[in-house]
Amino acid sequence: MAELKDLTKRSESYSQWYNDLVIKADLAEQSPVRGCMVIKPYGYAIWEKIQRTLDEMFKETGHVNAYFPMLIPKSYLSREAEHVEGFAKECAVVTHYRLKNAEDGSGVVVDPAARLEEEMIIRPTSETIIWSTYKNWIQSYRDLPIMVNQWANVMRWEMRTRLFLRTAEFLWQEGHTAHATREEAEKEAQTMLHVYNDFANNYMALPVVMGVKSANERFAGALDTYTIEGMMQDGKALQCGTSHFLGQNFAKAFNVQFVDKNNNLEYVWATSWGVSTRLMGALIMTHSDDNGLVLPPALAPIQVVIVPIYKNEEQLSKIKETIDPMIAELKKMGVTVKFDDADNKRPGFKFAEYELKGVPVRLVLGARDIENGTIEVMRRDTLEKETRSIEGITGYVKELLDEIQANLHRKALAMREENTRSVDTYEEFKTEIEKGGFILAHWDGTPETEEQIKNETKATIRCIPIGWDETPGTCMVTGKPSARRVLFARAY
Amino acid sequence: MAELKDLTKRSESYSQWYNDLVIKADLAEQSPVRGCMVIKPYGYAIWEKIQRTLDEMFKETGHVNAYFPMLIPKSYLSREAEHVEGFAKECAVVTHYRLKNAEDGSGVVVDPAARLEEEMIIRPTSETIIWSTYKNWIQSYRDLPIMVNQWANVMRWEMRTRLFLRTAEFLWQEGHTAHATREEAEKEAQTMLHVYNDFANNYMALPVVMGVKSANERFAGALDTYTIEGMMQDGKALQCGTSHFLGQNFAKAFNVQFVDKNNNLEYVWATSWGVSTRLMGALIMTHSDDNGLVLPPALAPIQVVIVPIYKNEEQLSKIKETIDPMIAELKKMGVTVKFDDADNKRPGFKFAEYELKGVPVRLVLGARDIENGTIEVMRRDTLEKETRSIEGITGYVKELLDEIQANLHRKALAMREENTRSVDTYEEFKTEIEKGGFILAHWDGTPETEEQIKNETKATIRCIPIGWDETPGTCMVTGKPSARRVLFARAY
Repeated sequence: MAELKDLTKRSESYSQWYNDLVIKADLAEQSPVRGCMVIKPYGYAIWEKIQRTLDEMFKETGHVNAYFPMLIPKSYLSREAEHVEGFAKECAVVTHYRLKNAEDGSGVVVDPAARLEEEMIIRPTSETIIWSTYKNWIQSYRDLPIMVNQWANVMRWEMRTRLFLRTAEFLWQEGHTAHATREEAEKEAQTMLHVYNDFANNYMALPVVMGVKSANERFAGALDTYTIEGMMQDGKALQCGTSHFLGQNFAKAFNVQFVDKNNNLEYVWATSWGVSTRLMGALIMTHSDDNGLVLPPALAPIQVVIVPIYKNEEQLSKIKETIDPMIAELKKMGVTVKFDDADNKRPGFKFAEYELKGVPVRLVLGARDIENGTIEVMRRDTLEKETRSIEGITGYVKELLDEIQANLHRKALAMREENTRSVDTYEEFKTEIEKGGFILAHWDGTPETEEQIKNETKATIRCIPIGWDETPGTCMVTGKPSARRVLFARAY
Repeated sequence: MAELKDLTKRSESYSQWYNDLVIKADLAEQSPVRGCMVIKPYGYAIWEKIQRTLDEMFKETGHVNAYFPMLIPKSYLSREAEHVEGFAKECAVVTHYRLKNAEDGSGVVVDPAARLEEEMIIRPTSETIIWSTYKNWIQSYRDLPIMVNQWANVMRWEMRTRLFLRTAEFLWQEGHTAHATREEAEKEAQTMLHVYNDFANNYMALPVVMGVKSANERFAGALDTYTIEGMMQDGKALQCGTSHFLGQNFAKAFNVQFVDKNNNLEYVWATSWGVSTRLMGALIMTHSDDNGLVLPPALAPIQVVIVPIYKNEEQLSKIKETIDPMIAELKKMGVTVKFDDADNKRPGFKFAEYELKGVPVRLVLGARDIENGTIEVMRRDTLEKETRSIEGITGYVKELLDEIQANLHRKALAMREENTRSVDTYEEFKTEIEKGGFILAHWDGTPETEEQIKNETKATIRCIPIGWDETPGTCMVTGKPSARRVLFARAY
């Protein structure tokens, strides 16, 4: 229980609670390299589940994986003018390719003779290197579409970092597709938005808002950026994934043309889309509580833990007789089970540990249970305990996992709805934004007004929500006409 | 067929054949970044199968995945003296963390104000960063063993590169384990050697030789390096994977100690082990022929391709009636099937393409086959064709895939055995080594003699084979006593 005591309460400091939890639940830690994290085995096991699931969804929607170099020649960044403005500045620059022994024997130094003719940067994103490659892959409409995804590490030299949410190096996937027509590319960008939305809702139990970014918040080089925005428990927004319609910008920058069916030479249309280890942050912050992590069963590395209570080997072996077929049955149902009969930790310690690690269902079985034919079931989301008959327990556990998955989504959705408000005046907006949450307000559509609101309230337009109220009105700041309400929030 | 014509024959130039094949089978290509490759979707699909299979084998042997930073502070490399000698020199060095717009508007330049206090290198391997992390994870024997693997990209600034075989950036896995005792660490290094051996034999159909490296060929910082060595079709050896017993070298370098059961402070024992995208090169070179790639079914992204021969839609729809249940049945058996009814390519073109891409089994079905209840079956390994009854074809195909897998291994083993010879004199050795293949010869066990042989014949000791003839003799070069024959070859 010692570990739990040190977990800051959310009400004391949400931010400290998050940091504590990431460390204490063994998800990740700071590395000796500034801003770079170590993803620990338990955290990585969750990331693997995210990867596997998304990878299947990408393949079902017609994509294949490939791999492109991690280094990008410096000059590539200048090719697409908007892109370089948005991205190129804060990145790791490779200037040399050799070390040598220091003359004073103190270790190794950079060999000045091994200076690169052109410096390289570690990819902050791969549009430029990939489009320089696509140039050779695409001649005719028959070479299109190209539907490629890459799982990779990327690096952005962030000054203020937080584990998972913002790190210098992070893991992600980046899809880069090439199309013959504008319509097809736009459709692809939207398809991937929906894939992300499905994943967030159905696996992460995170009811994100789908929308379009305003010009200010668009990806550097995109014509349209689609986003899924989640609301964390502190009412702040977290951008969870983006899908970009890039138009012909990168095709023009890298001169990628194709001969269409009518024998005309045209520039190729592009999309890119990505989610990263930031999703781990979203997952943690959406569901977890003061006792530790709460994981949706669909992404939990261990879905059910079974803890036996026993005084001697005889009792343990009796418990095992009951438990073994139960474990076999659960595994057959596709449930991941851990049986923890380690004898160097007391049951209370184990309970706290699995609570901290967010295992969705805990089963406890003692000698008396065996006599009575009962078992104790605890669900992590509500911490409710009940004693049930062992008869039919596996079916019950399976249903309970589904119910926990659904409940987490319900709870998060209710939280989001409670904390989403419409306001009509800028005064009201300034008051309401202090309370956190999402605010729907009218805006005149100009970058200047958006910038003013950001400077004065720290709130940004998270998105223009898709499928939400589209009634026109007047801008809360300027009184000019507004096409519809947009979603404001303070964000991570 | 145009593409096939351009594939160099192995007898003309094995090396050119390899390069042609990698390009023409769409496996990989050179990137604009010196020495770095682009792994294309078809090549990456094979790599994914390799990854998935190995990952399962690692987990079955008790390992978990994690992720460590790609950048390593320069000073870390000097901590383990042998390690730095073997590794640190040729690597990508990050010296700055920001670009800025050039004053003349010509693009971006490195911002001299953003110089790192300490330079970083892109990991060539991760022992140093991982052991600096393990220091915080290990206090007591209860924290051991640590059984961690990482899937990652690494970078070694190679001067002469070849696709998959030797590239500046490559993908790999690196296991890094920590143990309380020497025995346990030695056992782990050997366990992983056997995992690699099983994988090479059972999935790659590659009958590698397991052995121990001589001191000269050992990993920098290891006490023992275990290896699996494959023989390519040109008789050259390819090191396919290594597993290192690192002793306490890294624990001492990074001061990683633990309190053992008797309350003594001890240094931790270590192993590391890895295989890389180099396995792709081994796979290609072991089985492929002048018609293209030959893939063992266990790693083929497409195991069976079905090509319909039809003149009109009516014929095609009749063929589909027969084919659809067949495809469903094959999929149920776990077989990956592609039905290629694209009408913009002629059957002959398709045949050549799937031969080039190494699809193990091809089924062809025309209108007359439907009448006769027959189907044409072609196996890629022998190029043998036969016409069979459609009745029971799925069971036959499943067996055929197993037979192809077994046949490829048999063939590769026979090739290796034919080209493995014992010689007793250095004269004979010099003649025989010119013919290629593995040579078993006596050696006095000294680095000096090994160095002399290497300089005079370009042959190295690939390994001291495990479980092979251990009869003592006299060194072919110096006449001094030799403990046993060791395996020499020229190598990639």
